[in-house]
Amino acid sequence: MDRANPNHFGAGPAQLPTAVLQQAAKELINYEGLGLGIGEISHRSKEAGQVIEDAKKHLGELLKIPDTHEVFFMQGGGTTGFSSIASNMAAASVGRSGQVKVGAYVVTGSWSAKAAQEAERLGVPTEVVVDTKKMTGKYGSIPATSEWVGKIDVRKHSYVYLCENETVHGVEWPEVPQELVRTGVPVVADLSSDILSRRINVDQYDVIMAGAQKNIGLAGLTLYVVRKIFLENIKKVPEAELLDQGLPVTPIANHFPTVVANNSAYNTIPIFTLRIMDLVFVHLLKRGGLDVQQRENEEKARVIYGALDQFSDFYNVPVDIPARSKMNVVFTIKKQGLDDEFLKQAKELGLTGLKGHRSVGGFRASLYNAVELRSVRLLADFVTKFAKDHA
Amino acid sequence: MDRANPNHFGAGPAQLPTAVLQQAAKELINYEGLGLGIGEISHRSKEAGQVIEDAKKHLGELLKIPDTHEVFFMQGGGTTGFSSIASNMAAASVGRSGQVKVGAYVVTGSWSAKAAQEAERLGVPTEVVVDTKKMTGKYGSIPATSEWVGKIDVRKHSYVYLCENETVHGVEWPEVPQELVRTGVPVVADLSSDILSRRINVDQYDVIMAGAQKNIGLAGLTLYVVRKIFLENIKKVPEAELLDQGLPVTPIANHFPTVVANNSAYNTIPIFTLRIMDLVFVHLLKRGGLDVQQRENEEKARVIYGALDQFSDFYNVPVDIPARSKMNVVFTIKKQGLDDEFLKQAKELGLTGLKGHRSVGGFRASLYNAVELRSVRLLADFVTKFAKDHA
Repeated sequence: MDRANPNHFGAGPAQLPTAVLQQAAKELINYEGLGLGIGEISHRSKEAGQVIEDAKKHLGELLKIPDTHEVFFMQGGGTTGFSSIASNMAAASVGRSGQVKVGAYVVTGSWSAKAAQEAERLGVPTEVVVDTKKMTGKYGSIPATSEWVGKIDVRKHSYVYLCENETVHGVEWPEVPQELVRTGVPVVADLSSDILSRRINVDQYDVIMAGAQKNIGLAGLTLYVVRKIFLENIKKVPEAELLDQGLPVTPIANHFPTVVANNSAYNTIPIFTLRIMDLVFVHLLKRGGLDVQQRENEEKARVIYGALDQFSDFYNVPVDIPARSKMNVVFTIKKQGLDDEFLKQAKELGLTGLKGHRSVGGFRASLYNAVELRSVRLLADFVTKFAKDHA
Repeated sequence: MDRANPNHFGAGPAQLPTAVLQQAAKELINYEGLGLGIGEISHRSKEAGQVIEDAKKHLGELLKIPDTHEVFFMQGGGTTGFSSIASNMAAASVGRSGQVKVGAYVVTGSWSAKAAQEAERLGVPTEVVVDTKKMTGKYGSIPATSEWVGKIDVRKHSYVYLCENETVHGVEWPEVPQELVRTGVPVVADLSSDILSRRINVDQYDVIMAGAQKNIGLAGLTLYVVRKIFLENIKKVPEAELLDQGLPVTPIANHFPTVVANNSAYNTIPIFTLRIMDLVFVHLLKRGGLDVQQRENEEKARVIYGALDQFSDFYNVPVDIPARSKMNVVFTIKKQGLDDEFLKQAKELGLTGLKGHRSVGGFRASLYNAVELRSVRLLADFVTKFAKDHA
C-alpha cells in the first residue's frame, strides 16, 4: 500500500501526509492490537476517550492554547461551523436587559459572505460592517482597519466574525487586527483553511472554528477553541427565552455547552476522523511545530508568487499583495485560450488540482501544510517555462 | 494488515466486514491508481461524484427504492438526523391556510424520546401521542395500534415519527403498522440501527433517516430516503415565513432541498466515509441482498434469545416477545453480583462489547449485520455454560 509523493494542489479535501495515512490505514483494521479498527469501537470506550484527550493535548501544544480556552470537536465542516456559530452566538447576544445585540460580519470573500447570509437566514440579527466586494468591485483585498473597526461597538455587537483565509478568492488576513481586539467585542474566526499553517495568538480569539479537511485531515470533523467565559454566557440564557425572542435554538449536537459538557462525545464523534487529526498534530509536533511549518509555508508562497510576479505580463494575480493568501494562490493567464493547455501540461508533469474555483475560473494552487516545498518548486518551474513558451 | 475474526457485540460504532475495511484502507492511501487517497480529492471531482452515484444506485438496489423517493447523504448521525427532521418538517407543517400542524411522536425508548424532546426544544409544535414508559412503567414494548393510531389525524399532524429499533432498550417495531400508513399522515422513521437488516417496503415511509455507524459504516454520515413530493412541500414555504411564525429554519448544510439540489455535495461530503458505505452496500449485494441478510439476522436472534429463554430462571429479558429487537439483545442476570464475572469470562473467550447501556445496566449483545452467526453461536454457548455454572 504505497504511492509516489503526490504534487496535488487541490483546494480541499486536500493532500495529507502519506505517513499519516499509512498509519491510519492500519488502525482502520486493527487499533493497537484490539482486534478491531478504531472506527468500530464505542465513542465512550477507554480507547476512544484517549484519542479525544490526545487530540486536545496535542492541539493545545501546537497552538499554545491558554487555560482560558476550551477545545472541542464537532461533526461537520465549515458550513455547519458557521451555522452553529450563528445560533450559539444568538444566546450570547441576549444582553442583561433582554436587549438583543447584533453579530458583525467582515466580508472579504465568499466564505465570510456565506456565513453572514446564513446567520441572517437563521434569524440571528446581523450587520455586515464591511464587504470588500461592495467597496472595490471584487474580493481581493483586506480592508484597512480605519475603514471599519470604528463601526464595531461593544454595546451594539455581540461578536465580530471573519474568515481568516478565503479559499475561493485567495485572500488571507495577515493577522487579527489589534484595533479590533481592543474594541472588546468577541472575535469569532473561521480558520478552516489556514489553521496550523502559522503561529497565532489564541488569546486574541473568542471562538476559533476550523474544519479538518485542509490542513488537518478528512472531511466531516471540525475543531473549536472557545473562550470558556463565552460558553458560560451561552449557558445562562434559557432556550425558551431564545424562542420567545424569535432567536434560533441550536441543534443539540452542535450546541457548544452540551458538546463541551460531554467532552465532545454527546453524540457519536467520528473517532477514525479524529484519530487522523491527532496523527496530523503529532506529525506537525515532530517536525518542530508551527514555527517550522510557518517558515516552510512562507517559503512555498514566496517561491510561487515569485514565479508569477516575474511574469506579470503573462500571469495576473487578482489579489492585493498584503492580502495574498499563503494557502491558496489564485491566478489567471492574461492571454485567452491557454487555460486548457496549462492544465494539460501540468497534469503531464503530475501537478494536479490546479483548476480555479468554478465561480472565479483561472487557476488556484493550494499550498496546505502537506504540500511539500519540493512540489511547489516543480510548480514554479512549470509556471516559468509555460510563460516563456507562450509569451 | 490483518486481524482475527472479531466477535464484537458493541452497540455502535459497530464491527464492520473485515474485507470492506481492508479495501477501504488501500483506498485511503491510493484510490484507483490516482496517486491520492479517496479522502484527499475534491468532493466535486469526477471520482467523488462517481462514489455518490454508486452509493445511491447500490442502496436503491438493496432497498428496492421506487422512483417516488430520493436518496441523499448528510453529515451527522442519528442526533443530527432527528434535529434535521424536526426543522425540515417545520416547513412541511405549515398548511395552506397558514395553520401550523403538529409533529406526532411515538415514543418506545430513549431515542424516540430524545427526538420528541429535540423537536420541542427547537420550537417545532409536537405531540407525544404515545409513550410506552408512561403506559407501562418502562420501555420494553411496542404499543398496540388500537391504543394510539386513532389519535393520528391528517388534518392535525404534519408527520408521525418513530424509531424503528431502540438500541438502548432493545425494542424493535416488527414493521410499520398498516393502520398507521392508512391514516395518510407522512411516516418519518429513524432506521439508524436496523437499516439493511431486513427487507422493508420503502413506499410506506415518507422519510427514512439512518446513521451509518451500526450496519453501514463509520460514524459521521447519515443516509436519507425521502418521498420527492415531501421535498417539494418543504421548498414551497419561504424561510421568512417560518421565522415569522416562530418556526425554526434548518441550518443550510442540513436543509433537505438544498442537499438534494446539490446531489449531496452542497458542502463537503465525507467522501471516504461514503465510500465505505458503498463498499458495504456492494458487500451485501454480493451476499444475496437483504433477503439473505434478514434470514441470517433472524437465525442470529433465534440462537441467542433461545439460549436466554432456556435459562429464564437465570436470565431476564425485559422486553415483550413481539417487541424484541433482532439488533440489540438486552438482558440481565437475576442473581446479584455476577455481572463482572460474566463480562470477564466473556472477554477471555474473545466475546466483547457486551456491557449494557449505562442507563439500564446489565448486558446488551448487538447483532448488527457484520456480526457473524458463528460469533452468536459462541455467545449462546457461553450464555448457556455460564447459567449452568452459576445456577
